[in-house]
Amino acid sequence: MKNYIRHDEWSIIEEGFHSDYNRITESLMSLGNGRFGQRANFEEQYTGDTLQGNYVAGVYYPDKTKVGWWKIGYPESFAKVLNSANWVGIDVSFEGEQLDLAKAKLVDNFRRELNMEEGWLKRSFTARLTSGKIVRVESLRFISIANDDIGAIRYSVTPVNFNGEMVVTPYVDGNVHNEDANWEEQFWVPVKAKAKRRSGYVVCETKKTAYQVATGYRFGITQDDEEVEIESARIDHESYAGSEVTLKVSEGQETVIYKYAAVISSLNHDKEDLYDVCKERTRDAYDTGFDALLDEHIHTWAKKWEESDIIIEGDVAAQQGIRFNIFHLNQTYTGEDERLNIGPKGFTGEKYGGSTYWDTEAYCLPFYLATAPQDVARNLLIYRYRHLEKAIENAQKLGFYNGAALYPMVTMNGEESHNEWEITFEEIHRNGAIAYAIYNYIRFTGDYGYLAEYGLEVLIAIARFWAQRVHLSPARGQYVMLGVTGPNEYENNVNNNWYTNYIACWCMNYCKDALDHVRDASPEDYERIVRKSGFDSEVETARWQEICTNMYFPRDEERGIFLQQDNYLDKEQITVAELDDRHKPLNQNWSWDRILRSCFIKQADTLQGFYFFEEHFDKEELRRNFEFYEPRTVHESSLSPCVHVVLAAVLGMEEKAYEMYLRTARLDLDDYNNDTEDGLHITSMAGTWMSVVEGFGGMRVRDGHLHLSPMIPEQWTSYSFRIGFRDTLLKVTVRQDSIAVENLSTNLATLFVKGERWDIDGGEVRDQ
Amino acid sequence: MKNYIRHDEWSIIEEGFHSDYNRITESLMSLGNGRFGQRANFEEQYTGDTLQGNYVAGVYYPDKTKVGWWKIGYPESFAKVLNSANWVGIDVSFEGEQLDLAKAKLVDNFRRELNMEEGWLKRSFTARLTSGKIVRVESLRFISIANDDIGAIRYSVTPVNFNGEMVVTPYVDGNVHNEDANWEEQFWVPVKAKAKRRSGYVVCETKKTAYQVATGYRFGITQDDEEVEIESARIDHESYAGSEVTLKVSEGQETVIYKYAAVISSLNHDKEDLYDVCKERTRDAYDTGFDALLDEHIHTWAKKWEESDIIIEGDVAAQQGIRFNIFHLNQTYTGEDERLNIGPKGFTGEKYGGSTYWDTEAYCLPFYLATAPQDVARNLLIYRYRHLEKAIENAQKLGFYNGAALYPMVTMNGEESHNEWEITFEEIHRNGAIAYAIYNYIRFTGDYGYLAEYGLEVLIAIARFWAQRVHLSPARGQYVMLGVTGPNEYENNVNNNWYTNYIACWCMNYCKDALDHVRDASPEDYERIVRKSGFDSEVETARWQEICTNMYFPRDEERGIFLQQDNYLDKEQITVAELDDRHKPLNQNWSWDRILRSCFIKQADTLQGFYFFEEHFDKEELRRNFEFYEPRTVHESSLSPCVHVVLAAVLGMEEKAYEMYLRTARLDLDDYNNDTEDGLHITSMAGTWMSVVEGFGGMRVRDGHLHLSPMIPEQWTSYSFRIGFRDTLLKVTVRQDSIAVENLSTNLATLFVKGERWDIDGGEVRDQ
Repeated sequence: MKNYIRHDEWSIIEEGFHSDYNRITESLMSLGNGRFGQRANFEEQYTGDTLQGNYVAGVYYPDKTKVGWWKIGYPESFAKVLNSANWVGIDVSFEGEQLDLAKAKLVDNFRRELNMEEGWLKRSFTARLTSGKIVRVESLRFISIANDDIGAIRYSVTPVNFNGEMVVTPYVDGNVHNEDANWEEQFWVPVKAKAKRRSGYVVCETKKTAYQVATGYRFGITQDDEEVEIESARIDHESYAGSEVTLKVSEGQETVIYKYAAVISSLNHDKEDLYDVCKERTRDAYDTGFDALLDEHIHTWAKKWEESDIIIEGDVAAQQGIRFNIFHLNQTYTGEDERLNIGPKGFTGEKYGGSTYWDTEAYCLPFYLATAPQDVARNLLIYRYRHLEKAIENAQKLGFYNGAALYPMVTMNGEESHNEWEITFEEIHRNGAIAYAIYNYIRFTGDYGYLAEYGLEVLIAIARFWAQRVHLSPARGQYVMLGVTGPNEYENNVNNNWYTNYIACWCMNYCKDALDHVRDASPEDYERIVRKSGFDSEVETARWQEICTNMYFPRDEERGIFLQQDNYLDKEQITVAELDDRHKPLNQNWSWDRILRSCFIKQADTLQGFYFFEEHFDKEELRRNFEFYEPRTVHESSLSPCVHVVLAAVLGMEEKAYEMYLRTARLDLDDYNNDTEDGLHITSMAGTWMSVVEGFGGMRVRDGHLHLSPMIPEQWTSYSFRIGFRDTLLKVTVRQDSIAVENLSTNLATLFVKGERWDIDGGEVRDQ
Repeated sequence: MKNYIRHDEWSIIEEGFHSDYNRITESLMSLGNGRFGQRANFEEQYTGDTLQGNYVAGVYYPDKTKVGWWKIGYPESFAKVLNSANWVGIDVSFEGEQLDLAKAKLVDNFRRELNMEEGWLKRSFTARLTSGKIVRVESLRFISIANDDIGAIRYSVTPVNFNGEMVVTPYVDGNVHNEDANWEEQFWVPVKAKAKRRSGYVVCETKKTAYQVATGYRFGITQDDEEVEIESARIDHESYAGSEVTLKVSEGQETVIYKYAAVISSLNHDKEDLYDVCKERTRDAYDTGFDALLDEHIHTWAKKWEESDIIIEGDVAAQQGIRFNIFHLNQTYTGEDERLNIGPKGFTGEKYGGSTYWDTEAYCLPFYLATAPQDVARNLLIYRYRHLEKAIENAQKLGFYNGAALYPMVTMNGEESHNEWEITFEEIHRNGAIAYAIYNYIRFTGDYGYLAEYGLEVLIAIARFWAQRVHLSPARGQYVMLGVTGPNEYENNVNNNWYTNYIACWCMNYCKDALDHVRDASPEDYERIVRKSGFDSEVETARWQEICTNMYFPRDEERGIFLQQDNYLDKEQITVAELDDRHKPLNQNWSWDRILRSCFIKQADTLQGFYFFEEHFDKEELRRNFEFYEPRTVHESSLSPCVHVVLAAVLGMEEKAYEMYLRTARLDLDDYNNDTEDGLHITSMAGTWMSVVEGFGGMRVRDGHLHLSPMIPEQWTSYSFRIGFRDTLLKVTVRQDSIAVENLSTNLATLFVKGERWDIDGGEVRDQ
């Protein structure tokens, strides 16, 4: 834990320059608007340690796969999130001496702030250069969430102890690379670069995928609040465009550069138009002006907060943590484009690549369901529907047939990007989460129409996969599933992972229900789907029935628990509490074989099943399993603690719930896993939201109604969260001794609080 | 199966140029002398498909590890066999037109022959060039096994239909690369290149390891058997040296280039001397002359054949196959240098890298024990002794302590080179084979002194490893070993692999015996070893005892077999015979997960234990296990069939033994696995020898005596093999109705034939 970030309710604040932690701060203070985003890199040159990162959603590069030993079925390439043109750059120099905090003799009053309420990044400092010149800088930057082609910077420079000449060069630089490129390859080819007197534009194209992105800027300069007439030297070559302006500056005089940028991609425009659109957008932004753009941006953020804010009173660190998570989730995915998804690092880093993991369905969906319009979550589902054909191809590669689908572990365009056999080929439970998300979406929204339109086809293909993946064990006379990796990736190639076996059967059963529903409700759709997928209802559903009736589930009768997998109890049984601290985290201290043969669990596995299928088990069964597995869980996945918060809350284990909550809430802020420098754990942030709303708040949807069953950690005075449920918007406030629900909508809300029915009229509050 | 190689008792012959199979032929006809070697590349330019390969034993490059996902304990690098300077090159052109079989209009009478009796490679052809010129070429080449710094070429060119000018350029070219380089990196740095009138020298240094190799040539030319006065243009740059000679040639006139090469490495000479030594050696070779060098070479091969030949009558294909294997084994390893070992591809290709696998101990040792002086096998053991410290470090990386050693899966210098976790960290049975080799060596030679001098230290470190690697299962109350990969690599990360559990206990028991022996026989050595290894005899041996007494071995009582691993019988039980041909070989048709969850076995696993520890089990137990496992075995490792030949022979299953023999004997010659182009399966060649001598011949050593129990396939008239056993050399001849043993030594030989004691005086024959 670095502990250099100031606790604040609405802001992330670094005071004093922590150059050793610069990559961490760059991650924490990243900006994005769902369409594009960037790390909190400096505008002026910085030769110190930094991870330069600008990213455009949906624009990726299929980097040639790198493996030690090729295996049949591996993908040829790994879809990498692409570092794209840097548009924040403003070089500043005084008589040939570059402003560069890595080279300054002294940096004073350094302060960096990410304001989450309003969505902007501010930085200020006083630097004494080697020459003895002292200069004061203040920058303010945002990426508009209201006008999602646009970003803007207000960059102010004031000489403190000298008069002289300053050269400022706003620029766009497309000559960037990915640190994690497999083959140290450049992913972009320059198409066009044009610098003008007060603007510049760069168009680059990705290799292989041939996406084009135009990145441009237009700028203005004021001195003493007066517009300066700009004469500039224009520098353009390959993928760089810059406008070099020489200015007289004097002691105490503030020079302000307003830089407006646009990022326009061929995802949304014809390639031949990109340059012009980019020009037009920067001009529009320039004409609108910095303050007006910022106002509009802040206003849109205010609306987002209205739907999604969580307020925690009595614990500033917790308040900061939860808002940090909500803020970044909203920066990453806005749900306007069904081709996009929630990358594991969002716009905050390049690691892991791909944009979509099972995280989206298992951990992120509930957040967007409850805090955004229904279409946002629906687009997440349609994303998978669009990839169905690729998922069928993927399954074919592994020997499956008859339209069985295996969705990829990691993907950008529907093709698998992962290439460790134990994950790629064996961590197949992800297929279950994709089916579960359909169920979860319909349960929350009541949108059964989704089944006929999209969902059923996906469910059939997934059920078919499971039916082919199991076989009748000659030794047991039951169906078994061999050679899988469960959610606990600290086990590989195990037999009969309980969670996977369980969700496999659930998928087959749910698909049968969905078939019945669509047959009754939309017979024409039913016919269309049966025809399209060549579905033999009688034979296939009978087979599913037969499998589900005779499926083997490993169990320890003595302890009354399910076994994570066959022979789990052969392992040396040690709890995490007994483990010497020097071994932790295991994944940084133990070789893989040692981790694998230990009993230690990376993240909820058997318990993930209890989270998804809570109502299938009684509380005592949950308690026995929780008490067995949680003490063996090292929570070395950022996705682990949240599920445990929810289950601990169900069991009334307040302390455990709060302990787990602390591990998820400030994971990145406090850099628990020593990897915030690579970017933030975006998907696990949704887990934090889940911890509060489903965990402490006990929110569930049952039979079309919202249920709450709140508890409150003793460390908090109160907390409140908002839920958009169907046609109502509710604000739930939980205090140590009361629960209040405010109906922010105009419609009647009916919900159940601790089992009691509450009817609340629009605009009314009820409490207890 | 390509079937283009002519069947011949002593030669490998290609008639007509099979350019599509050129890489295969290049592998098959490779030359080597234990010190250096090469593929059968052409002397003149060839722009068609070819894998250029020259290799120097012990000179390697630690190529930066390439993995998809790094895991703790992985080696930083992978020791690659290095492609080194090409010294066979002789460019030939006529009036600017290059002689190049890929560009010739017609290639006639092409013939390539590897003569195994005498160890040379001959090639002849008539080519019609684009210009219409027809030229006849004959080349003869060998790498001297008598003078192991030297290679020589006789290259003859005769114009068939023209007079004109010919330019010949003998050269050495060090600008070579490895096709399998992880990062397309060049591994060599040029040090010096010098071309002279009739000689040329190149010195290169490997990156990182800083080995230097000097490669040089000297040449002479005759026309009409008259020495030609040579004037040449000298071309040298970076790592190339060539001498370009222009000659008048006329129709029907033979020009012969004699090229003598030397390959001198810093393994054996000071770097500063390399150039001079290389010059001196080429001059000596030149002075000795081609014919004299060849005579000496042939003579030395004759001696090798005397010790190791196997004669099969009545089956030319079998005769060719077995000699092919013996020939390449003798080319690869001569046992003169304890720093060298038996690379998986010898000098025939670059694939797999490393020089040492468990193949050496498990499959190759018996061949060298029986066909070469005792020191040859002993040096193979000392090789591992020298790596003990690295093996202890390797185990430490994986969390072991107190001097426990895990020998690497693949190595060049004692460090692990492999980097798939399921192999590197889990295929630990290799440790058992290394201990077993010590046992096997002493059993054969009676050299108990080896224990005190070297063996015991290795045994202690290995026993310690096993004692730490097992643990008491709380569920079973027995010792278990979780998370291993057995010899059958078509299972990964399994629990309680029977073979591994068994050999682990055997190692601990054998180490106890060895301790007792050394304590009694060499108390001073005992004290030294105990001190050096910090061995606590009482505590450690008691622990081994406790483990071995309570070890768990998976078993199926109903079938009376050992189980390859826990839950093996949960798999769908299909035999290979039931498997559709289009699925075979599995490793080219199935994704990895599908292979893993199938019951199919890559190579002897449980049965490997029956091979090593034959006398621990009765024949019915062997039969039950063989009849269960062999039908499930796909033999997709070249090391698989031989073990099955030996066991089938024990069981009197003659047909099965012969069927298996056919799969191993001509594996490379007939390119069974479609991979001969990458190089030959050198280590599995020893398995073929084992099939004949231990399989059909039933050779065993028990209580210090040789035992034979021969059978003969009905397809053969007779076969005979030679065994150097202690102070005797025996020739065993088996006919359909008789067995004869000739004592080629002068000492009395006592052996047991089918249980009957035979005493044979030196020089005498006995038969029955």
